[in-house]
This record gives sequence, structure tokens and C-alpha cells, in this order.
Amino acid sequence: MKIGGKLMNKYDKLVTNAAGRIVPTEINGHAAIPYLGVGKHRPTGRKAAPLISSCIDYPGDGNKTLASLKEALIKSGLKDGMTISTHHHFRNGDLVANQIFDIASELGVKNLVWFPSASFPCHESLIKYLEDGTIHHIEGSMNGALGKFTTLGKMKGLGVLRSHGGRYQAVQDGEVHIDIAVIAAPTADPFGNANGVDGPAACGLLGFALADSQYADKVIVVTDHLVAFPCIPWQIHGNLVDYVVVLDKIGIPEKIISGTTEVTKSPDRLLLAEWSAQFCDEAGIIRDGFSFQAGAGGTALSIGIYFAEILRKRGWKARFARGGSNKYLVSMLEDGLTEYILDGQTFDLDGVRSMRENPRHINTSPFTSYNYHGKGNFASLVDVAILGATEVDLNFNANVVTHSDGYLLHGIGGWQNCLFSKCTILPIPLFRDRIPVIRDNVTTICGPGELIDVIVTERGIAINPLRKDLIEKLKNSSLPIKTIQELKTEAEQICGIPEKPKLSEEIVAVIKWVDGTIIDAVRKVIV
Amino acid sequence: MKIGGKLMNKYDKLVTNAAGRIVPTEINGHAAIPYLGVGKHRPTGRKAAPLISSCIDYPGDGNKTLASLKEALIKSGLKDGMTISTHHHFRNGDLVANQIFDIASELGVKNLVWFPSASFPCHESLIKYLEDGTIHHIEGSMNGALGKFTTLGKMKGLGVLRSHGGRYQAVQDGEVHIDIAVIAAPTADPFGNANGVDGPAACGLLGFALADSQYADKVIVVTDHLVAFPCIPWQIHGNLVDYVVVLDKIGIPEKIISGTTEVTKSPDRLLLAEWSAQFCDEAGIIRDGFSFQAGAGGTALSIGIYFAEILRKRGWKARFARGGSNKYLVSMLEDGLTEYILDGQTFDLDGVRSMRENPRHINTSPFTSYNYHGKGNFASLVDVAILGATEVDLNFNANVVTHSDGYLLHGIGGWQNCLFSKCTILPIPLFRDRIPVIRDNVTTICGPGELIDVIVTERGIAINPLRKDLIEKLKNSSLPIKTIQELKTEAEQICGIPEKPKLSEEIVAVIKWVDGTIIDAVRKVIV
Repeated sequence: MKIGGKLMNKYDKLVTNAAGRIVPTEINGHAAIPYLGVGKHRPTGRKAAPLISSCIDYPGDGNKTLASLKEALIKSGLKDGMTISTHHHFRNGDLVANQIFDIASELGVKNLVWFPSASFPCHESLIKYLEDGTIHHIEGSMNGALGKFTTLGKMKGLGVLRSHGGRYQAVQDGEVHIDIAVIAAPTADPFGNANGVDGPAACGLLGFALADSQYADKVIVVTDHLVAFPCIPWQIHGNLVDYVVVLDKIGIPEKIISGTTEVTKSPDRLLLAEWSAQFCDEAGIIRDGFSFQAGAGGTALSIGIYFAEILRKRGWKARFARGGSNKYLVSMLEDGLTEYILDGQTFDLDGVRSMRENPRHINTSPFTSYNYHGKGNFASLVDVAILGATEVDLNFNANVVTHSDGYLLHGIGGWQNCLFSKCTILPIPLFRDRIPVIRDNVTTICGPGELIDVIVTERGIAINPLRKDLIEKLKNSSLPIKTIQELKTEAEQICGIPEKPKLSEEIVAVIKWVDGTIIDAVRKVIV
Repeated sequence: MKIGGKLMNKYDKLVTNAAGRIVPTEINGHAAIPYLGVGKHRPTGRKAAPLISSCIDYPGDGNKTLASLKEALIKSGLKDGMTISTHHHFRNGDLVANQIFDIASELGVKNLVWFPSASFPCHESLIKYLEDGTIHHIEGSMNGALGKFTTLGKMKGLGVLRSHGGRYQAVQDGEVHIDIAVIAAPTADPFGNANGVDGPAACGLLGFALADSQYADKVIVVTDHLVAFPCIPWQIHGNLVDYVVVLDKIGIPEKIISGTTEVTKSPDRLLLAEWSAQFCDEAGIIRDGFSFQAGAGGTALSIGIYFAEILRKRGWKARFARGGSNKYLVSMLEDGLTEYILDGQTFDLDGVRSMRENPRHINTSPFTSYNYHGKGNFASLVDVAILGATEVDLNFNANVVTHSDGYLLHGIGGWQNCLFSKCTILPIPLFRDRIPVIRDNVTTICGPGELIDVIVTERGIAINPLRKDLIEKLKNSSLPIKTIQELKTEAEQICGIPEKPKLSEEIVAVIKWVDGTIIDAVRKVIV
């Protein structure tokens, strides 16, 4: 039984995938491939082929500006059932996405698919459009209220969550066809060249909108800082842009720069950071010319600082550090402790400034860094990636989107993509709010255990048995190396065995793997 | 009658196009569209869709190096009938293209199509492969000996000449499918990221190879300067590259940097330059924030110097200057007389250095600058373009590929694309070797007269009657404004009426317009 494209309680198209999860073979009316295992799905066919444009249809003087976003959407042919994309470089300070759907509602357009690179609490007001049918469903991470709305089974279509690389892959491969891309750009010229490094709403870069600019039928650039041609650098090519709209304000600067931007002060978190860094050192990962990616959380920031100390002490430097950049990473660059920052997202104003000014602070995109359907990508070249997780199971499978109560509260981000680094370490607390993090089974599998090498907790470190090399290297370590079963038992001795979440069989969202297959499904929470 | 894909003397598929030229409707076995007029051909359909790749098939550590070009060509599946592309950033110092066909010959591969962005005298040795069937035909400019070979009707297939923008358009639109692209890169990393600004064979940029990297089935990067990942900047994305090969030497530096790099000393040429600059000034084209493109010839360089003097005197600056860059343009940038150089090709070492070091010296490509099947391009945003020509007719139609004796001796380069500037000026001598340049009909039409605004000769200046605005602005000028008929008559009074070239009806090559249609055909020269 299928209503509005969503699989309901009576499943006629479900299958158990290679991760042992029951997943649908159809999503919102389109066939889907169940996860086959890491590196097992070989794509066939050709990339999406955008319509051929012609200079005949664009102003010879290069001036593509229109008076309003409404006019641009109408000229772009906005109509029922279209897929509209936005990007999340403004994070919780975005002032553009909501306006698009206000206009769509005003025009009486229905059943849109919203395809953001991520959604944030500032988009909560879109719930009314999900309820009244202006938006049929969201494909993209649904943080906060939108995630809760989805997990309660209220969205008309199935949610589809992808990693940053998976989003590029889906657009490139034609799994998602974007009818209209709206790219909010801190600086642009009338031709549509655009960047994120200049202007009052500077966010650093626009990499998450790259696929949208390349593959959407119509591309609208929205800016509050119009400069004369040429806008330099052009992170988005005007040659791919149809219309340019100037608004008073496209983002709230103080909310654009967010995330945890201070190192942790929690003794437990500091211990995780110290042990993670020590582990990397003893495993021989830290060396002159190594590379690493650590996120923007307090623990990850602290690990970066330990790395920097080790490098400084030994007169070494990293060849490159992957960003999300912040002031700590920028210091490493400026102090000569890393040759380059390869950055996908700037997390603070130091990151923005550095990307603007420092030719060694390099703008990357999901295409260069994460697209699994390219001729390789950067993620697998990184020596060590430090990531988070909400849950891990005894086979090292990990969850990053749902909490143990079943609620879908986080996006995947680049997490799945980063698992392909040469060593993936998850420094996580053994329990959160007295809920153990290591489980028999994770609520939602986002990453297969074979790609997760090390779990660092405040009560010990578990190395994936598949990584015999790491086990060998650490065999005489002073670090508290344990099995993951030991860690789980320890947590349960303290907190008790956790209750399972109360979930219906109804599927409300699916989790895509980096190759476009379905690795898991998210069930409706019973309240 | 058709032999080996080439139309022979008995034509069964010819048509008169909108330029009044008789052109074939089929080229090397593929249907072709005759020229319909400027802005009259609206493309339909979708861009070429490359095969979807997967990281499964590429080394996780990013090391794509192979031991030899031969191994890379074999792994790329080199076989009969394939299209092999190369670029011409090394100009007459290229050491790679010939090697490809030496290997093909050694392997007994036949009927290849060579698709260079341009060919040079250094490629003369490929004539033996055109003769023995290793290469079926060349699509790309054929300078010097290859051009002569072609014009004598010796090439098995039809030559196809395209502008830089037309080449991008043809690849993007799937008119030319590249099986294997070989990109010789002055610097590269093992992942295939590559640039032209560093290394012993530094040529500045690699824009002519961009389409090849994006659309070819297999992409081989060949370098003599391998650096650790990441190669910064990556003008070519490693994510599009299959194999990397290191050779001892890919180019001869002193021949890479070529072209006329000194201002003219000829009094006649200096006069052309002075009058051209004065014309621009009186027409109001030179203003604070204007933009211009002048080529690398001695006259064009001199015009740039006049522009610089005017700007300096008035305290103005150009918003941007289009390169081909050279030391004169770099001085303008460094002296603050232009805010940016938007550069498609560096013509000397100062250009290379400036592109490497100056963030205002911007790397462009045929995609950004010239592709007519984009959502606009840069060429039409330029206030004035100064170009050359071998012949001009009374309707301002111009020729840039053949000489008046019928020999095909030049490529189109960006010439056709630049005609879309707001004002196109051709400063040309009234006669060369006592052969008048203004003709009743040009030997080969490369550019329609409606896009050519002004002809500047040493005996007077003709303004296209379509440009009533320019005629009005110059009506009180001290410049010797004449009609083009007057200039033609004057030349013929001096040199006599020129003889027509002795041409057979046999077509040996075709000239594409920027939209992929056929604007003219080149006939075999009777010797």
C-alpha cells in the first residue's frame, strides 16, 4: 500500500539489505537499490545530461538581474511537483530558503520537493508547508523540529538522507533532478559569478551548491552584495546561472558562523582527545607530511591542538588538514604546521578570512572531496579522520542520524564519506544521559563497521578486529585497549541495559549510502 | 561520392548556407548543420553525458601513476577509430602529442582522429601517420605543414576547424566524443590534480584541456613535475583523471613561450595601433572601468600600450583586460591600470609568473570565456576586442584561416568568439606582399560582417554601416574615416586587382561557427 509515494504499514516492496536492514525498494515512486556492501555496487550508465543552453537566450551585456526572487522563480517556470534546491552554508542564519516556499505558497504551487544540502532549526516555519501540501517532502538532513516532524510520520513523502558526497553523486547520476536551484551567495556579479568569501554574509565558500549549479535546469543566484563583473573568485560559474536577484539581506552573519568553536573544557572530553591523539601517535599515523580531518566539535578541536603540539615539538608539518576550518586550524596553517587546509566549510570568521586571503587555504567541494562516483576522491587520501556518532554496535557499525529514542535529529554531513580515510576514529562518551552508546544494534546504520577502525571512550579504546595492523602496533601501549564487548559491558554495569526505542513498522525516511544504495530506513516513533 | 568519410568531387550533399557559402551537410560520416546566421541556430537536446565512474575502480591511496604513456594508452583501451585529444598550451614546444601517435603506430592502431586544441609546426612529423592511416584526420587548427598537407587534399578525412569556444561547445554538446584525452601538465600530483603554473614546462594554465577532462572517457595526465598530493592550484581536477604518467620532459620551455612578444617597430603598424586607440577614445569606449582584449601580435601589443597611457594620464583603470597575457599586460596589472587580467593563455614568462603569484591574474577557460552554448559567456561583456584577419570583404566578413592563395595556414583560436565583444576592431594592413586584404569575397568566411565593426588600415578607417552609433560619434573626427569600398579601391590602385586562388571543388576542411554550424568549407588548392 502506498499513499502519496510513501510506503505505509503494509509493505509490498521491502527487502533485507547487506547490512541486515529491512529497506524499501522504492522511494517516493522511484526504484531504489538496497545496500550491497562496501564497494559492491558498481554504477552503470551515464551522468545526468543538462539541457544545452545558448547565448541567444541570455543578455549580451551579461546583466541577468531581476527585480525579485518571485520574478526569478516565475521566470524559472516554478510549478507543481518541482524539485527546488538550496544550500546550507548559512547554517542557522539562512534567510532565503523560507522565502522560496512563502512565494510558492502565495502562488498556490503544490507538492514541491525541497532538496537542501541540509536544513536547520531556522527552517522550522516550513512545517506549515509540509502540512498544507506546498512541500511534499524533504530530501536532505532534517535537524531539530523538521526531523521530529518527520520521525512522527507527518511528512507526506519519504525523507531521503544523503551524505555531502552522496548528494553530489545523486545529482550527478540523475537520481535527483533539480528543476530550480536557488544559490544564496554572499557576493555575486550581474552575470551570476558568485563566491562566499566576501560581503556581509560571507560564509567562506559555496561548495555545497556546486552540483546544483552544474545540473539544475534553472539556477538563481541570490545575493545582498552585488559587485561589478568579474566577481573574483567565482566559486560558482556565472556561465551556469540564469538569473541574479539582489535582496537586502540573505543571512544573519552571527548565525552563519556557528558550531562549537571552542575547545572542550570537560575533563572526560579532554581525555578522549588526548587518548585519540596518543593513539594516532603510537600507531605511527602522525608523521612529517601526514594528513587529518577533525570536525568542529569541542573534542575534535582539542585533538587538532594535540596534533599541532606533537608536530611543533618534532619540527614536522602536516601536508594538509581537511576543514571544516576554524581559528585553531587556521593557526596551524599560519604557524606552518600544515602546508594546506583543504576546506569544505568554514566554521568561523577566521576560517572565512583565511580562505579569502591565504592561497594555501583551499576551497573544496563535495565533488573533489567526497563524490564516490568520481575517479577517486580526496576522502580516501586522508591519513586519519576523527568523527562522532550517536551509537556504535558490537560490529563497529555506527549511527549518526538518530538518537537511541528513534528520533531523526542529525544530518549525515560528510561523515559517511570520511569513513574512507586510512584510519577512522570515533572518540565518543561511553554513555550520554546515562544511555549507553555501544549497543547490540544501532537504531540506524549509517556507516558499516568495516570502515570504522577505532572507538575511543573515556573508559577505554576498542580497535576493530579487522585492523590487525593497528592491534599489533598498539600491543605494548599504555593506552587502555579493550574489546568493544568489554566497553559495552562496562557501560551497562553502570547504566543498566538500555530500553529499545518504541518504533512502528512505518518507514518515514531512508538513509542512502555513498553509492546511492539504501543502507537503512528510519521508522516512525510511537508516542 | 564519399571515400573514407571525405566528400569528393561529386557532391550529393551540399547546400548554400546563410553566409552564401556552399557547405557539406555531412562531415566524416556525421550530419552537420549549415550556418543559419548569427544567433539563429537554437540548440535542442542535452549535453554529453560521460559514463559514471566509481571509486571502486580507482586506487584508495590516490596513486594513479603508471610506468609509461604506452601503458596508460593501452589501459585506456586505445583502438582503431578512436578520438584522441591533446591541448596546445606548449605551442611549438610540445613533446607529448607526437609520442602518442608513435605509440599508436607501434601498436598498429589505425584511423584515429586527432583532436588537438591546435597543432603547430612541431607536429609536422605526424604527416607520416596521416599518410599511413594511423591518423584518419585532424579536427583542430592546422598551422604550417599540416595545413598545407590538408589543403593539398592529402588528408583521408575532412579537417574540421573550430574556435576555442566552438571546441568546448562541440565536446559539451556531444558533437565530438573524446575517447582518450592526454593532458600534458607542467605540474601534477599522483591523483591527477594538475596545473600549468609550476614546473620546468610551466605554461600558465590548462584551460584548453578543460572540456577534455570533463567529457573524455579516459583522461591521462602526463607530467615532468610530480608533486605530493595536493597539487595546488588544481586547474585540472584529479577526480576526472584515470592515469598519471611521469616523463622526463613534456615541453621545451623556450618554445612554449612564443608569439610576438615585442611591440611593433614598423611605422605602418604603429600607425594602425595609434589610430585604433584614438578611435576607441573618440568613440567613448575607453572610460574608467572599461574592458578590452588585444592579442599578442606586435600591433595589438602597441594598442595596449596606448590604452595604458590614456588610462594613466586620466587616472582611470580598466575593470579587466582579457589575455593572452604578456609582460605589457602584466605591467598594467602591476601598475594598477587594470583591476584584473582574465587570462586564457599566457604568452610569456611574465604572464606565467603573474598568474602564479597575483590573485588578480585570473585563470579562465573556453568554458567561461567563449562557449556559446552556455548561459552567456565572457566574450560579449568585453567593451572592445582588437583582432587580426587575413582578408575582409566589402560586407565586413572576415577570414582568419586561409591566405588569399587558398592555403589553410592558421587556426581560428578565440577569434570567432571575441567577435561578440561590444566593439570589434580589425587593425590590418591594406595589403600584404602587394596582395590587397580587402576583397569582393574572402577566400574563407570565418566571421560574419555584422559582428565586425571597424577596419583600421594605414590608409584609412572603415566603420561598418550597421554601427550608426559609431559613425555618429566619429563624424567630426580627425581620423581618416572612409568607406570600405574606398579602401578597397585605393589598395587596388596601388597593387592591381588580385588574382583569385586556384581552387578545386573538392572540400578538404570545414569551418565551424561558434554554435556548431558550418559557416564555410575550404577547397583543395590546385598546384
